[in-house]
Amino acid sequence: MDAVVTAWLEQEEAFLARQRSHGQPEDGGLARPEEVLPLTGLEMLEGMIAGRFPAPPIAYTLRFFLLEVGDGRAVFQGQPKQAFFNPLGTVRGGWYATLLDSALGCAVHTTILPGERYTTMEFKVNLVRALAPDLPRVRAVGRLRHRGRQMATAEADLVGPDDRLYAHASTTCLILPPRD
Amino acid sequence: MDAVVTAWLEQEEAFLARQRSHGQPEDGGLARPEEVLPLTGLEMLEGMIAGRFPAPPIAYTLRFFLLEVGDGRAVFQGQPKQAFFNPLGTVRGGWYATLLDSALGCAVHTTILPGERYTTMEFKVNLVRALAPDLPRVRAVGRLRHRGRQMATAEADLVGPDDRLYAHASTTCLILPPRD
Amino acid sequence: MDAVVTAWLEQEEAFLARQRSHGQPEDGGLARPEEVLPLTGLEMLEGMIAGRFPAPPIAYTLRFFLLEVGDGRAVFQGQPKQAFFNPLGTVRGGWYATLLDSALGCAVHTTILPGERYTTMEFKVNLVRALAPDLPRVRAVGRLRHRGRQMATAEADLVGPDDRLYAHASTTCLILPPRD
Amino acid sequence: MDAVVTAWLEQEEAFLARQRSHGQPEDGGLARPEEVLPLTGLEMLEGMIAGRFPAPPIAYTLRFFLLEVGDGRAVFQGQPKQAFFNPLGTVRGGWYATLLDSALGCAVHTTILPGERYTTMEFKVNLVRALAPDLPRVRAVGRLRHRGRQMATAEADLVGPDDRLYAHASTTCLILPPRD
Repeated sequence: MDAVVTAWLEQEEAFLARQRSHGQPEDGGLARPEEVLPLTGLEMLEGMIAGRFPAPPIAYTLRFFLLEVGDGRAVFQGQPKQAFFNPLGTVRGGWYATLLDSALGCAVHTTILPGERYTTMEFKVNLVRALAPDLPRVRAVGRLRHRGRQMATAEADLVGPDDRLYAHASTTCLILPPRD
Repeated sequence: MDAVVTAWLEQEEAFLARQRSHGQPEDGGLARPEEVLPLTGLEMLEGMIAGRFPAPPIAYTLRFFLLEVGDGRAVFQGQPKQAFFNPLGTVRGGWYATLLDSALGCAVHTTILPGERYTTMEFKVNLVRALAPDLPRVRAVGRLRHRGRQMATAEADLVGPDDRLYAHASTTCLILPPRD
Repeated sequence: MDAVVTAWLEQEEAFLARQRSHGQPEDGGLARPEEVLPLTGLEMLEGMIAGRFPAPPIAYTLRFFLLEVGDGRAVFQGQPKQAFFNPLGTVRGGWYATLLDSALGCAVHTTILPGERYTTMEFKVNLVRALAPDLPRVRAVGRLRHRGRQMATAEADLVGPDDRLYAHASTTCLILPPRD
Repeated sequence: MDAVVTAWLEQEEAFLARQRSHGQPEDGGLARPEEVLPLTGLEMLEGMIAGRFPAPPIAYTLRFFLLEVGDGRAVFQGQPKQAFFNPLGTVRGGWYATLLDSALGCAVHTTILPGERYTTMEFKVNLVRALAPDLPRVRAVGRLRHRGRQMATAEADLVGPDDRLYAHASTTCLILPPRD
């Protein structure tokens, strides 16, 4: 597990270094619409990984970052922290859900053409194992299952560097055509 | 809508004032197990509302607080903020999900006897309307649907002071008997 | 409970009598498209209850019938039978699901304008209590939660004449505009 | 696709032939409890495929049969028929749901020890593509995702002989320990 953790932390640090070297804000930001509008969803997400676009505010608030993206695939890495604890002293299910929602949404986002938009209509999360308090990082891996003209679905897994499954999820997204 | 917002903000301010007057940490904390163990879930949650127990860290990180609780019922109030924006410039669905997950979980929590525990096995969220960026607060209202010996379910709505429905959700929780 | 069962059985018998008096097929059928096309969804469903349109084949195969319909509301009644048993000797969850899916879909169907269509994108069912083998009938009551231009959601409960909750469910439907 | 259909139909016919050669009832039945109680879930399901135990009534009512089973895996094959049509003239979503619910449940069932039982607490179905009316058969393939002491989850896909994905689903099951 140690080798996996080391590789994961290096990949995250490289992401943050690229954000800094491009002068992106330390607490996240939004790309300017005119920069993003001509791009496909995949190009936009690749630009975020490359540091040309800022990571969004929620990523810094909840400490999770998009590290890999491909056709119908997106990988987020998150850091369970005490700041996300619920009254029971464990990481709130909503934190898992946010990571998984991001991986699900971005797997769909990779299929978006210039001018198209998408919105998440629903998602469901199965929490199968409590996060060990000392787990340094977890990954949400999203994969597209269906892309139609008006609708898309995706599934995602939350896994640890221990190769264990912590949660799995599915989503339905609405595809909005370009505005004329 | 203005009168509703005013009442909602006053209720939240009163919650935070009670937390301060009991010397609870400004960024949340956890009750000591020996304080909570002899209590029912409802007593524990009432104690949090009364300020005798701290709000958990996630509540401050994501700005949402438990304002009302009753038999099989829990109301959380949250503040949509730019810190929760996704790359599309809207509040991340995961933020909604966290609020709803909390309302769902606490609706079940109100049924927990001393020594019992519960854990969320799954939840599903339907996002039906984008949060207007200037909506000052939203509320997640959870209600118990079933309480069995080993399992409980709940549903929750996310509503605005404009009386609109923004999201709805359901959950399945596992009930764990007292450890002998 | 006896009075409720009696009332429920009378309402079902009246439905079947109207189907027979209009000469509808004994194992269900489909309305002719030219009859249905000019109608709203609500008018079409009211026509089925009145016996002017046949109940669909699945209704006879699984023994459940639409008994009440209104704006954003639909009530189906079903008869648990040994023919729906799974290997464990209880009614298969899929039978519950079919009843609930029908109540969910028809709650949305009541909002459909002439020429519009809808399709179920997803639904989730919580099974909270096993059907007692001697329960003569159950009802699935669907209610609309949201109707947008492209999407609608609904929730539904499965209840017995004993006033108990057996299952609850939610759905997301896609609304398809009239074809030009 | 023709070769796939041929192979699928042969496998189904072989299943039905084994049921007949063991004298199982033509409209399904239930194994005697004393036969099944000493078996693991996997042994019981293998016995059904071998014809030593009857297929359950619901399998004949809705025309779907268990053709393959393994550790954490179950494959059902179903025949879309007009008897399962809804008022829109397409196969009712509940029929898909029943197939998927069976594949999900049996994937969990393969992990059940003698004396243990399980029950489905919830399942969610994503319907991504309408069943073509002339599709002779579809398959629901379930796979276990998590097996804990008190809870298990599974996912399933509904696929055609055209190798297309028609639906996907997930479930949460409760595991009940042997009664003392």
